[in-house]
Amino acid sequence: MHLATLTIVGVGLIGGSVGLAAKQRGLARSVRGVGRSLSNLERARAFGAIDEIYLDLAQAVTDADLVVFCTPVDRIAEQVLACAPHCKTGALLTDAGSTKGQIVAAVEGKLPAGVAFVGSHPLAGSEKRGPEPADAKLFQNRWTVVTRTPHTDAAALEKTVAFWHALGSREMMRAPDDHDRALAMTSHLPHLLAAALAGLLPENLFSLTAGGFRDTTRIAAGDPALWSAIFNHNRAALLDTLVPLKDRLLQFQQALDNHDDAAILALLSQAKKVRDALGS
Amino acid sequence: MHLATLTIVGVGLIGGSVGLAAKQRGLARSVRGVGRSLSNLERARAFGAIDEIYLDLAQAVTDADLVVFCTPVDRIAEQVLACAPHCKTGALLTDAGSTKGQIVAAVEGKLPAGVAFVGSHPLAGSEKRGPEPADAKLFQNRWTVVTRTPHTDAAALEKTVAFWHALGSREMMRAPDDHDRALAMTSHLPHLLAAALAGLLPENLFSLTAGGFRDTTRIAAGDPALWSAIFNHNRAALLDTLVPLKDRLLQFQQALDNHDDAAILALLSQAKKVRDALGS
Repeated sequence: MHLATLTIVGVGLIGGSVGLAAKQRGLARSVRGVGRSLSNLERARAFGAIDEIYLDLAQAVTDADLVVFCTPVDRIAEQVLACAPHCKTGALLTDAGSTKGQIVAAVEGKLPAGVAFVGSHPLAGSEKRGPEPADAKLFQNRWTVVTRTPHTDAAALEKTVAFWHALGSREMMRAPDDHDRALAMTSHLPHLLAAALAGLLPENLFSLTAGGFRDTTRIAAGDPALWSAIFNHNRAALLDTLVPLKDRLLQFQQALDNHDDAAILALLSQAKKVRDALGS
Repeated sequence: MHLATLTIVGVGLIGGSVGLAAKQRGLARSVRGVGRSLSNLERARAFGAIDEIYLDLAQAVTDADLVVFCTPVDRIAEQVLACAPHCKTGALLTDAGSTKGQIVAAVEGKLPAGVAFVGSHPLAGSEKRGPEPADAKLFQNRWTVVTRTPHTDAAALEKTVAFWHALGSREMMRAPDDHDRALAMTSHLPHLLAAALAGLLPENLFSLTAGGFRDTTRIAAGDPALWSAIFNHNRAALLDTLVPLKDRLLQFQQALDNHDDAAILALLSQAKKVRDALGS
């Protein structure tokens, strides 16, 4: 895959990493960055994540071959719809949002002819913000979910897969709602739990935390506005995950109440088996 | 502090790290390791965590100045009581167990004259097992809780503090039950949550996990037998932490149910503030 012009909307950790990877791998002749913060964009350009700076979305997408939206999930659909009329025929729009159902539904069937949108979600990132933590290897050997619906254009889908693949990722295709149900369990519930646990800690216990508390709550340092938008987008699936979670907590509680060490051991052993299978 | 003979009971991650730190810092002329697994002890000696290998506890503590128990919490008290009659007058016994109330209560008032026990818990470790991950710097700049009760001998307490300090740690003193209530929140509840979450993950979602899930569940890879013993020892305090946790989960649930983005944002923001204060 080789693009003449790649436009990155939102140059934070994900957008900056797309830019660095695209430039390092020679994926695009020119990489444009567009955003609201000139200072962010200038820093991203300084360390080579983008070539050109734009503050106007319509200008930034003009003549672009591929536009990737790395903005908060509650802004992606409106930005896609706003810029599509300014895109050239044949342009492909995709995104890196953590939720897919609402975004794909809001965009599907509403784009001008010749402009396609395919939803994506690279399973990479961290609790860090801004372009500085960007990493050309962020997507390497990580999965990217690319969404497919009955209305998805086959050529656009293929091009989207090729794009993430060119950045080093492996791809899998999912219906948007399947993605959201899965990510509710693998990403959004962990965030909720990390935040619940961190939020319970009184200040007088800060010095009595060690690596376990820090690991378990690390993602609670993520941007609350970004995550509140993700929770909003995936509300129903996230609520669904609370049912088995509360059931599991009840199993622990009853085992403790009943002094049932064998039950505790069984719960911990099953969890270890899963965690060991995931690797480090 | 300088010891002629230090005996380490249980040479895994913690015991091995005590040995490495003690030898690197010149704390003891001779470091003995005692355990049930000759292979573990031989590996620990091979990389310099101990000088001498013992399979018999009574022999290993003979003439020792300080004996540190780095065994599972459900074995420490019985081992202390079993070896105390073989210790010389003036010997200090301490431990590295993750719970303190039951251990200190089981030992207090039951030792021969001239032999003292003071409970300790260095807030360091990981989910890894065996002597190999041992690290001479494990305790460096980490807190160690040293327990104090109305019956604690002042000189033994001071010597215990000096011992952990010599290994690089900072010390704080707590009543055993205060330690256990605090650690229920800062360590045992996180472990329970990590295990609850890991245990919920079906195999078909393994590839859809990323750094967030892995961080949040990392400690669930810990040894189930060790942790089941910790949960058993600290059952009441751990059960107590489930009350505010379930209340916090209910707040998230209600905010989601009510489409109350402001409430979600407030919960996530408060959690981020705590997590940011803890550092990385």
